[in-house]
Amino acid sequence: MKYCNQCGAKVELQIPEGDNRERHVCIDCETIHYQNPRVVTGCLPEWEGRVLLCRRAIEPREGYWTLPAGFMENGETTHDGAIRETLEEANARIEVAGLFSMFNLPHADQVFMIYRGQLLDLDFSPGEESLDVRLFAEDEIPWDELAFPMIGETLRLYFSDRLAGSFETHVGTIRRVLKNPRRYQIEMHEAVVPQRPPG
Amino acid sequence: MKYCNQCGAKVELQIPEGDNRERHVCIDCETIHYQNPRVVTGCLPEWEGRVLLCRRAIEPREGYWTLPAGFMENGETTHDGAIRETLEEANARIEVAGLFSMFNLPHADQVFMIYRGQLLDLDFSPGEESLDVRLFAEDEIPWDELAFPMIGETLRLYFSDRLAGSFETHVGTIRRVLKNPRRYQIEMHEAVVPQRPPG
Repeated sequence: MKYCNQCGAKVELQIPEGDNRERHVCIDCETIHYQNPRVVTGCLPEWEGRVLLCRRAIEPREGYWTLPAGFMENGETTHDGAIRETLEEANARIEVAGLFSMFNLPHADQVFMIYRGQLLDLDFSPGEESLDVRLFAEDEIPWDELAFPMIGETLRLYFSDRLAGSFETHVGTIRRVLKNPRRYQIEMHEAVVPQRPPG
Repeated sequence: MKYCNQCGAKVELQIPEGDNRERHVCIDCETIHYQNPRVVTGCLPEWEGRVLLCRRAIEPREGYWTLPAGFMENGETTHDGAIRETLEEANARIEVAGLFSMFNLPHADQVFMIYRGQLLDLDFSPGEESLDVRLFAEDEIPWDELAFPMIGETLRLYFSDRLAGSFETHVGTIRRVLKNPRRYQIEMHEAVVPQRPPG
């Protein structure tokens, strides 16, 4: 960011009064331009034991398989975003079930949410950002050709929960291992009863 | 938004090629300026059956009670943000337990997340954005003086789960009733097994 989007003057990095980190501040109208993480919302669409994946037609990770997901828009809910992205990327209609996974991606300034969703029919096809859309049984999942680590982790948690007979909401953080853009550490934050200190 | 933050030229609303909604697009360098919802993250701090609330020192809703929460920052996780906000607003240290509630606020372009957290000690005090910080038992909660509807709803769900003996992750949407800025509709999206159509 180089210019103020309110008045067109230059911005510079300053710590505003009462704040504790640098922000882009307009040198003329003094508007503070905050930058915050974005939400990616999507769906794990189910049909009779199989799950729907999309093969990406765009970078990053063109040609790799993913769940339908994308940036949440202003004015919509994470639910509505998951429905919209599933329609846009797979031309597929779903009924949304519960929130299944939420991953923090601090290296990308993103929060990634996946809902489970029941496909309403089999009339799906690749949207503009997909090369292919297919249903996969558990033993057909292309584990080595998944686009992003949170996709593999979400699918592993899904099949594990399904085997256990009940779906939870899973929360975790995926961190990039420094100096290696394709290696990640996954840390799950399952709900636990913390130890209470003597009080 | 009136000016491009990359080159300082004017922006105008256009639907970019391949998109389906209006964006601010620079008339000179053609940068597309997306605007997306922001995440508010915070904590419901617990201590021996009581919960910590902060009385707001700032608008909106100055003087009303809230849970410590604020905008998630780039480079952090929702967990870390909940810890940071609790420290900033209540000078309180917590151990984060599970994600407790997540509310979509489409009228505000926000996603609001509250974690449960165990206070680590009783050495808390009002931060710069708080007038007062206190622990409340269930029958002491100032229900008519809560700052935002998602605060009341999160507290109701919390006491209900506590009575039932187990905490869930609750997901919902709060919509403003048109023409009445202080009336809201709350819709919960609990995880359900959707009806599968004949397939």
